[in-house]
Amino acid sequence: MKHKQAILASYKRIAPYIHKTPVLSSLGINDICETNLFFKCENFQKMGAFKMRGATNAILQLTKDQRSRGVVTHSSGNFAQALSLAAKSLGVTAYIVMPENAPQVKKDAVLGYHGKITICKATLEAREATSAQIAKETGATFVHPSNDIDVIYGNATAGLKFLQEKPNLNMVIAPVGGGGLLAGTALATHYFGNNCVAIGGEPSAVDDAYRSLQSGKIEVNTNTNTIADGLRTNLGDINFPILQKYVDKIICVDEASILEAMKLIYERLKIVVEPSSAVALAVVLRNKKHFENKQVGILLSGGNVDLQKLPY
Amino acid sequence: MKHKQAILASYKRIAPYIHKTPVLSSLGINDICETNLFFKCENFQKMGAFKMRGATNAILQLTKDQRSRGVVTHSSGNFAQALSLAAKSLGVTAYIVMPENAPQVKKDAVLGYHGKITICKATLEAREATSAQIAKETGATFVHPSNDIDVIYGNATAGLKFLQEKPNLNMVIAPVGGGGLLAGTALATHYFGNNCVAIGGEPSAVDDAYRSLQSGKIEVNTNTNTIADGLRTNLGDINFPILQKYVDKIICVDEASILEAMKLIYERLKIVVEPSSAVALAVVLRNKKHFENKQVGILLSGGNVDLQKLPY
Repeated sequence: MKHKQAILASYKRIAPYIHKTPVLSSLGINDICETNLFFKCENFQKMGAFKMRGATNAILQLTKDQRSRGVVTHSSGNFAQALSLAAKSLGVTAYIVMPENAPQVKKDAVLGYHGKITICKATLEAREATSAQIAKETGATFVHPSNDIDVIYGNATAGLKFLQEKPNLNMVIAPVGGGGLLAGTALATHYFGNNCVAIGGEPSAVDDAYRSLQSGKIEVNTNTNTIADGLRTNLGDINFPILQKYVDKIICVDEASILEAMKLIYERLKIVVEPSSAVALAVVLRNKKHFENKQVGILLSGGNVDLQKLPY
Repeated sequence: MKHKQAILASYKRIAPYIHKTPVLSSLGINDICETNLFFKCENFQKMGAFKMRGATNAILQLTKDQRSRGVVTHSSGNFAQALSLAAKSLGVTAYIVMPENAPQVKKDAVLGYHGKITICKATLEAREATSAQIAKETGATFVHPSNDIDVIYGNATAGLKFLQEKPNLNMVIAPVGGGGLLAGTALATHYFGNNCVAIGGEPSAVDDAYRSLQSGKIEVNTNTNTIADGLRTNLGDINFPILQKYVDKIICVDEASILEAMKLIYERLKIVVEPSSAVALAVVLRNKKHFENKQVGILLSGGNVDLQKLPY
């Protein structure tokens, strides 16, 4: 019940700062998948991804004194932008540690939201050390992109709103990378669903979360060869126990399935999503029997894709 | 007033067969364009374009006897799909005349909606002659994609719903190709707007409608070199007088502007539109002073784009 109240309170807290995102359907995709699919469109969320929810929630939980000293994170992806924009909206300074190989387009996006970038070597150690150094020097509070309970509660509000609009969903599928979205979604299905389960979708190439649930400890990836660039990260000690307790299962999909699902979303739903978002639909495409005649929620995580790199 | 009643009646007639499409906005695009833009998303319409409105309206105006003999049109684009799907929904046979150079993807789409395809030479004369022959043999009623008053009234319902949702629009910009959407939009702004004017957006490469309004007679294009493949057709004797009477002006834009506008729509609105839809936003991008601090409606005509041919 602690989680339930925390998620409801988080929604109340962040609602003025986020978009209400629509739930879309396509009869064409339903025919192809032989089930009933509902897509929660967090690609339409502010800055283009669900990450805005968790970032906003984490900053709003800080004291006035903490806010005056800023926040710091390390991310080359959507969380860097989310924390920057959330901080800007709330008059807080955001320090963003980015690896030296981060694409210019991502740096530009952070700068566009007034984030203060520090470049470091492209290793997890360097990212963590640089973040710690900035926190020490500035007094900024470190906010982890996925392994932070307030970030997880913020993310859970996507599932909360999804289930309020579609209370009869039998399952919600969310992509799993760092684990922050799937943990939030699993809490939402548990506390706000009507016998609804949470399923994770993960690229086979980076199946660390799948293996972690199997082995009972946090596993890591030996390579990151997936088009779903938002899902290359590993789980953390805060979200992993939530996944263990509340996630029904994680299903892995190959790269061809992800591309096929992404194409379907573009062609049938007429919306722009990033490859990571297509992973959840790929799970249904490759396991039709499992989802037959169910009410299936698909959490589309974001729409920040480099159009130059579309796989068409 | 005849037009006004006809448009209201058309909406009542087609409402059960079409989608309600949303109106989207983007603060980012507003900042770039220095105005307030509202996008009516007919890319989310059934079969992916506004054409569904006019096609459905035209079939619903036929007698039971006429419906039993089917409908026929010539089109290689969205109207072929729209008439096929509308006919299928209403239990009517649709004969579609397509030029021999029509892409397979478009033929497949028509077949997917159970349209009966006849292939002919890729000239307007061949298309018209083949359609006339089919009409004669089958007794099917010919429905022109843009030069038909019931199609125009059906198209006008997009503007009607747009203005009901956003009654304070100062102008609505629609792309102009065959003239059916702009004619409908102009009637809608005239009868349902609050001092709202209709503006046409046209690629400079196929500026026949612009020149027609200048010269007072229907002009044709000498080439069709534009990415906006839905806008290569010419006006007709039914829609042209409506454009002359009710359209404020037509503004032409170059190909680079169309591409820039299309990219903005993908990146900021996160939706998939076809190049023709981007023409209306390109008009604002290139004429910011004209639209400064106005409430500007942009009619996004459709989202049927060949992803293999995205210009990125």
